[in-house]
Amino acid sequence: MSTVGKTITCQAAVAWEAGKPLSLEEITVDPPQKDEVRIKVLYTALCHTDIFTLSGDDPEGAFPVVLGHEGGGVVESIGEGVTDVKVGDHVVPLYTAECRQCKFCTSGKTNLCGAVRATQGKGVMPDGTSRFKCKGKELLHFMGCSTFSQYTVVSKHSVVAITEKAPLDKACLLGCGLTTGYGAATKTANVQAGETTAIFGLGAVGLAVVQGAVARKASRVIAIDTNDGKESWARKMGATDFINPMKLEGQSIVEKLIEMTDGGLDHTFDCTGNVNVMRQALEACHKGWGVSTIIGVAAAGKEISTRPFQLVTGRKWQGSAFGGVKGRSELPGLVDDYLAGKLSIDDYITHNTTLSEISKGFEYMKSGECLRCVVDMSK
Amino acid sequence: MSTVGKTITCQAAVAWEAGKPLSLEEITVDPPQKDEVRIKVLYTALCHTDIFTLSGDDPEGAFPVVLGHEGGGVVESIGEGVTDVKVGDHVVPLYTAECRQCKFCTSGKTNLCGAVRATQGKGVMPDGTSRFKCKGKELLHFMGCSTFSQYTVVSKHSVVAITEKAPLDKACLLGCGLTTGYGAATKTANVQAGETTAIFGLGAVGLAVVQGAVARKASRVIAIDTNDGKESWARKMGATDFINPMKLEGQSIVEKLIEMTDGGLDHTFDCTGNVNVMRQALEACHKGWGVSTIIGVAAAGKEISTRPFQLVTGRKWQGSAFGGVKGRSELPGLVDDYLAGKLSIDDYITHNTTLSEISKGFEYMKSGECLRCVVDMSK
Repeated sequence: MSTVGKTITCQAAVAWEAGKPLSLEEITVDPPQKDEVRIKVLYTALCHTDIFTLSGDDPEGAFPVVLGHEGGGVVESIGEGVTDVKVGDHVVPLYTAECRQCKFCTSGKTNLCGAVRATQGKGVMPDGTSRFKCKGKELLHFMGCSTFSQYTVVSKHSVVAITEKAPLDKACLLGCGLTTGYGAATKTANVQAGETTAIFGLGAVGLAVVQGAVARKASRVIAIDTNDGKESWARKMGATDFINPMKLEGQSIVEKLIEMTDGGLDHTFDCTGNVNVMRQALEACHKGWGVSTIIGVAAAGKEISTRPFQLVTGRKWQGSAFGGVKGRSELPGLVDDYLAGKLSIDDYITHNTTLSEISKGFEYMKSGECLRCVVDMSK
Repeated sequence: MSTVGKTITCQAAVAWEAGKPLSLEEITVDPPQKDEVRIKVLYTALCHTDIFTLSGDDPEGAFPVVLGHEGGGVVESIGEGVTDVKVGDHVVPLYTAECRQCKFCTSGKTNLCGAVRATQGKGVMPDGTSRFKCKGKELLHFMGCSTFSQYTVVSKHSVVAITEKAPLDKACLLGCGLTTGYGAATKTANVQAGETTAIFGLGAVGLAVVQGAVARKASRVIAIDTNDGKESWARKMGATDFINPMKLEGQSIVEKLIEMTDGGLDHTFDCTGNVNVMRQALEACHKGWGVSTIIGVAAAGKEISTRPFQLVTGRKWQGSAFGGVKGRSELPGLVDDYLAGKLSIDDYITHNTTLSEISKGFEYMKSGECLRCVVDMSK
């Protein structure tokens, strides 16, 4: 029996309030309206941003909400005006939309899109309403994706179809972490062959930066983490060096890196979200041309600082969101890279769980042993 | 009687100690050694960096010293190994050297040169000694130039010959301020036709940024200063708008600029040296692509700060030294632009004085009415 045009009742992990565990609930998902797509979510991975928002530390976090933004699924139905995806397409929801019409999309300078930004930030669809209800209450959407539900509704600007050859339990990782890191190296920083790179913080994003730098044939890929357990991961991804800054004796990490690279790095990347580390990453850059790219999300109210002399002497400070990747135009290319064996995804999946045991996944993510936990949404 | 190979006795304005006025003295200037050039300084302009160092606020300032770094003169003699300039050449000393051999010069990425950096910072020639003596004491060199003397000695990497068609009492301004501002817009930021620009601080450097932005056909050139007297200067250089941020009511300068430009600037420039203004300049940039270039020199110990979100959402923070211009390779091109009427220099010269009355020039510079004061070194 077709569900098209009907409200669907399904299971979802609902975040009723900050600081409380997710709650498995039966929710209703309204049909997609004009320019919207309803997706049957088959897999979702967990990301630290979900944990951050659930914790209540995110000042913009609002509840009750259906979290999750790293998913993969199949189009169940489409609203009027949707032409780029059709029923049955394998898709990845995009928390960074691409409308191809706003001044951002047409600028040729950025992957940020203005089309759904305001409503996405408020946790609603572009028309200002929600498609989710539970126990008589409306639930908010999250990052335009809400993949912790068996069905979700997204804007047509916030979804991309990918080839069916790519397994969705792997490709879902391209919805956030891997694309964010890999793209930061290959698009935002645009690392060139022979350049030196250093990556601070070796979660999934940092390791994906390592992969991106290696793909670009960087001459040095120096991986940095305070957890020695990350060394083997970094080496597996192709890092040439590993440093645990806590174990340096009589030398700061900046001094160590400048010594190792005869003056500093061509490129550094912060994947920690720690503003002190962001400063180290900048100051470890080579005078005259070193570029430091901030990827990590800092806690509310935290600020980065440095002496302006660092910039006047030729270092550049920039940031990257979703790896500078335009999701609808460019994510299929990353899937191709994955299928061609150029971009590893499988290695990041250290844990698996099911929707009914999604809270276990959150525990795995907090353990430091887990890069990504993929959730089977059918169970 | 030729002075070649002999020590020259001449007049110079000596800075004996921080916080005291310059003192007109008879000093001796030794002959140029290997790879050095002795220059008869005909004109020098005054720059706020000279004032800053003389004041004692520059933590790296050392005394006694012959200040001055914005000069024009004629080559009096050359040491062994000097091939790019010859006796009689009209020259401009360069505080940003260009050796064409170090890793900076050969990188193709920066105008900073490493060749004489260490010794220049210490106030000595590359061999570690000084060419200046007065009353039995050695005087330090300053910024590799020391143009407040009728004769000076510089490294062969720190001087460029220019066409005799350019009057040296004008071309001397290319030794610092004008090149710094004009180059920041045309080289470092590389402003493109149709882009929007805002310039904070309308001294000679800021006005030269205005000129650079106008030369690049920027669609908006918004000039900002707390001194209303700067408006007419800015308009003369081609600024499309002038804002006095002290006179805004109920709106910050950042809000005002974002409103004026539908989201922020493509390029902003700080020419104030004030770290709070540097932050405003960054935050007035357009999300997704705005680039803020720091040109001003901050006071010792001051730091710039912002929320990393500003960078993650696509703004870039960079700096510019000597406008990103390679002095020996590119300064002659700016002289050509001047002679062709593309780059105004004469308008900046609001005051003139003589070596014997150089302290008057310092007073002019502090008055806020003076853009540049050119000193006739023969009197």
